[in-house]
Amino acid sequence: MADQKKFVEEITSRDVDFAKWYTDIVKKAELIEYSSVKGCMVIRPAGYAIWENIQKNLDARFKATGHQNVYMPMFIPEGLLQKEKDHVEGFAPEVAWVTHGGDQKLAERLCVRPTSETLFCEHYANIIHSYRDLPKLYNQWCSVVRWEKTTRPFLRSLEFLWQEGHTAHATEEDAREETIKMLNVYADFCEEALAIPVIKGQKTEKEKFAGAVETYTIESLMHDGKALQSGTTHYFGDGFARAFGIRYSDKDNNLQYVHQTSWGVSTRLIGAIIMVHGDDSGLVLPPVIAPVQVVVIPVAMHKEGVLEKARIVASRLDGLRTVLDDSDNSPGWKFSEHEMKGVPLRIEIGPKDIEKNQAVLVRRDTREKIFVSLENIETEASRLLDKIQSDMLSRAKEMLLSHIYDVADFEELCRQSSEKAGFFRAMWCGDGRCEEKIKEEAGLSSRCIPFEQKQISDKCICCGAPAKKMVYWGKAY
Amino acid sequence: MADQKKFVEEITSRDVDFAKWYTDIVKKAELIEYSSVKGCMVIRPAGYAIWENIQKNLDARFKATGHQNVYMPMFIPEGLLQKEKDHVEGFAPEVAWVTHGGDQKLAERLCVRPTSETLFCEHYANIIHSYRDLPKLYNQWCSVVRWEKTTRPFLRSLEFLWQEGHTAHATEEDAREETIKMLNVYADFCEEALAIPVIKGQKTEKEKFAGAVETYTIESLMHDGKALQSGTTHYFGDGFARAFGIRYSDKDNNLQYVHQTSWGVSTRLIGAIIMVHGDDSGLVLPPVIAPVQVVVIPVAMHKEGVLEKARIVASRLDGLRTVLDDSDNSPGWKFSEHEMKGVPLRIEIGPKDIEKNQAVLVRRDTREKIFVSLENIETEASRLLDKIQSDMLSRAKEMLLSHIYDVADFEELCRQSSEKAGFFRAMWCGDGRCEEKIKEEAGLSSRCIPFEQKQISDKCICCGAPAKKMVYWGKAY
Repeated sequence: MADQKKFVEEITSRDVDFAKWYTDIVKKAELIEYSSVKGCMVIRPAGYAIWENIQKNLDARFKATGHQNVYMPMFIPEGLLQKEKDHVEGFAPEVAWVTHGGDQKLAERLCVRPTSETLFCEHYANIIHSYRDLPKLYNQWCSVVRWEKTTRPFLRSLEFLWQEGHTAHATEEDAREETIKMLNVYADFCEEALAIPVIKGQKTEKEKFAGAVETYTIESLMHDGKALQSGTTHYFGDGFARAFGIRYSDKDNNLQYVHQTSWGVSTRLIGAIIMVHGDDSGLVLPPVIAPVQVVVIPVAMHKEGVLEKARIVASRLDGLRTVLDDSDNSPGWKFSEHEMKGVPLRIEIGPKDIEKNQAVLVRRDTREKIFVSLENIETEASRLLDKIQSDMLSRAKEMLLSHIYDVADFEELCRQSSEKAGFFRAMWCGDGRCEEKIKEEAGLSSRCIPFEQKQISDKCICCGAPAKKMVYWGKAY
Repeated sequence: MADQKKFVEEITSRDVDFAKWYTDIVKKAELIEYSSVKGCMVIRPAGYAIWENIQKNLDARFKATGHQNVYMPMFIPEGLLQKEKDHVEGFAPEVAWVTHGGDQKLAERLCVRPTSETLFCEHYANIIHSYRDLPKLYNQWCSVVRWEKTTRPFLRSLEFLWQEGHTAHATEEDAREETIKMLNVYADFCEEALAIPVIKGQKTEKEKFAGAVETYTIESLMHDGKALQSGTTHYFGDGFARAFGIRYSDKDNNLQYVHQTSWGVSTRLIGAIIMVHGDDSGLVLPPVIAPVQVVVIPVAMHKEGVLEKARIVASRLDGLRTVLDDSDNSPGWKFSEHEMKGVPLRIEIGPKDIEKNQAVLVRRDTREKIFVSLENIETEASRLLDKIQSDMLSRAKEMLLSHIYDVADFEELCRQSSEKAGFFRAMWCGDGRCEEKIKEEAGLSSRCIPFEQKQISDKCICCGAPAKKMVYWGKAY
């Protein structure tokens, strides 16, 4: 019991040491455990159940937009990885190489996929022949490996779980439409399921994906004011198609190259949930993806009728993801534990409540207590979960909006970025050297060229040349 | 069009060349495509959708029996793999070794998991402390790699998808109960979802899993009379617990080793579905796991009102997994294509049917045509799918029962096994040398020591010593 008490108390305050707070949460909420494999994590039941809900929700959105799931091999022969020049340059330095199968040295090294463009391209070259075969709208759920030097749970690890969409289209127009459509699917998912608002835009040349013509991104803002790239979609043009020979006969029987896209989100989104919504008592999960939405806790469980009543209440809520905590820990300990784990709604029920035919509903996000008649418990619990979900989004939006700063002067940008964190909006001439200088002197990387532009001034904040675009700059994970 | 026609015709007859027929099906039903990665396959949408339905159905059974999903790293450091002696001897010869991360040679080689006992054990040693932490009932869905020399789609490949359950219990009794419980979950799943009857039993010492005290298996019979090991569960005793130091304090505060199990099924089950139910026209999918349960095909689609009516029928069946094929291929071609893909029920609707307010329902399994009034189409389609599912199981059971042969004499066993395929039931003394001899001279391996025993004689069929058990022998994939 003493051990257990300690368990829920040992968490660093969010505003004292954000990085430590984050690590505390992933451990104490039992999302992750370290393993002896450097940079690789064990995703524990509480963490994996969040990922399962993310998968279920996103997968339904993918299928509703006509996509199909497939599974490609996890290995890529070295020769295949090298087929597209920019792509191999981007990824070869950070892949894991398999050199032996059993006792045998392999004739050709295999890398463990860091991403699967090359495998999809090889497959598409085999199965696409006619315009009738297009579009191909494929997705796969899998794990990928990137040999990162510094790792952090969910945010950056040697191996991570993700989905990667890979599509092939007859025309540039169709492929471009797909690239934007999937960015919107991601953005809607983040807002509607994760209660995380995002900035949608395009990556600069410097920040785009290895092999892409254009990369689009959704950027979200963490509680510490840093940005998190939360999902990306890529328009490839016909570059991969030319490298891999992916052609189809059009209606006039002419051979044409396909136009391609790819797009992905990963378990990094769990990191975003933690850092956007979490507080000093632990995780705060948005009801839509919370593995447990409601926990029912009997108070004075030893008193006659209490546990029985709690069971009835829990079973009446089985349309929601409800658990009854009838363990022999104290109610106070249970309150803390389920707060740590981010359960959106707690229902307390004790002898006095039973007398009054009521229960106490406690919101995880605001800690508000609401006394509800047992008659209306299903309706009230559902209503509150909806309310929690929308309030979480509203607060995250407020947080985002209050951390966007428009700056027109370079000195001012350097000064502000040293004083506060958030998104700095400033004009840019489009030159990579200015981007580089802003990185070096203001410590800010370009997050995206947002779809929603605003004319802050008409000159590049760095060189003073005519500005082409307004850009979001920030410090990022 | 000519190409497409050819597509559905090109399939070897099942009784002419079963192996070729199998390969034809996996290609023509578009389940699999080969890749340039030796021994690895691309699982295409039609194949992956079957796996998704298997996952969904099995996962619900796992959760209903109290299991939780987790995700372990895909890499196992060489030192960790070596911790349990029998286990490493069994698996080390067939693992893929990662020796380099990017340009750096690794200090310790990592193998790509062939199975994850060692990772789960390391994790359990970290998180299990008290009797309160038990049982741990974990499962993971992932891919594993075994460096096989000869590979066949779904049946044996270098990489395959599977689930692996790993559990830790306070007592031997609990662990033993889990081992049998999960074998029953597998057997029920095969019967109820895949319409495949199985023989349940224990593996011999020779055939058991590397590191297990006992291995249990479900064995099914393919159309060619060969057996397929379709799922296994393992009782580990405290062997792994001792090797990895997984101990807990019991209620009296004494340190005890846990008792463990593991269990798994894989995409191999898709191979079983093909080989149990398929015919010369292609795949025959059991309705419970068929990605498409009903295909609606308009006949004389150009005639007024036909396509419209077909759309109405299809939309009325949206409680089932229904698709409307309104492509511009001929009805005949569509019939063949959806037969090839194994769609359990076809609904044809043409001008004459519309006149009579009816549709033609065609069963994939029996090809029976049933004329159904449009009034009752939902009820009839559902009823027929249920009937198809149960008839498929009945036929598979008949097939199994008619291929079980009781033999009491060794010469007779050799003669019969050279003439016909199936399960041969014969008595065994328990000596591995007899098992070896039966393998060498009759070409039969021990499939299992079935739970349902029958006294065929009182002597070992091989050496004549007193028999201990009746054993199923067979040729196996």
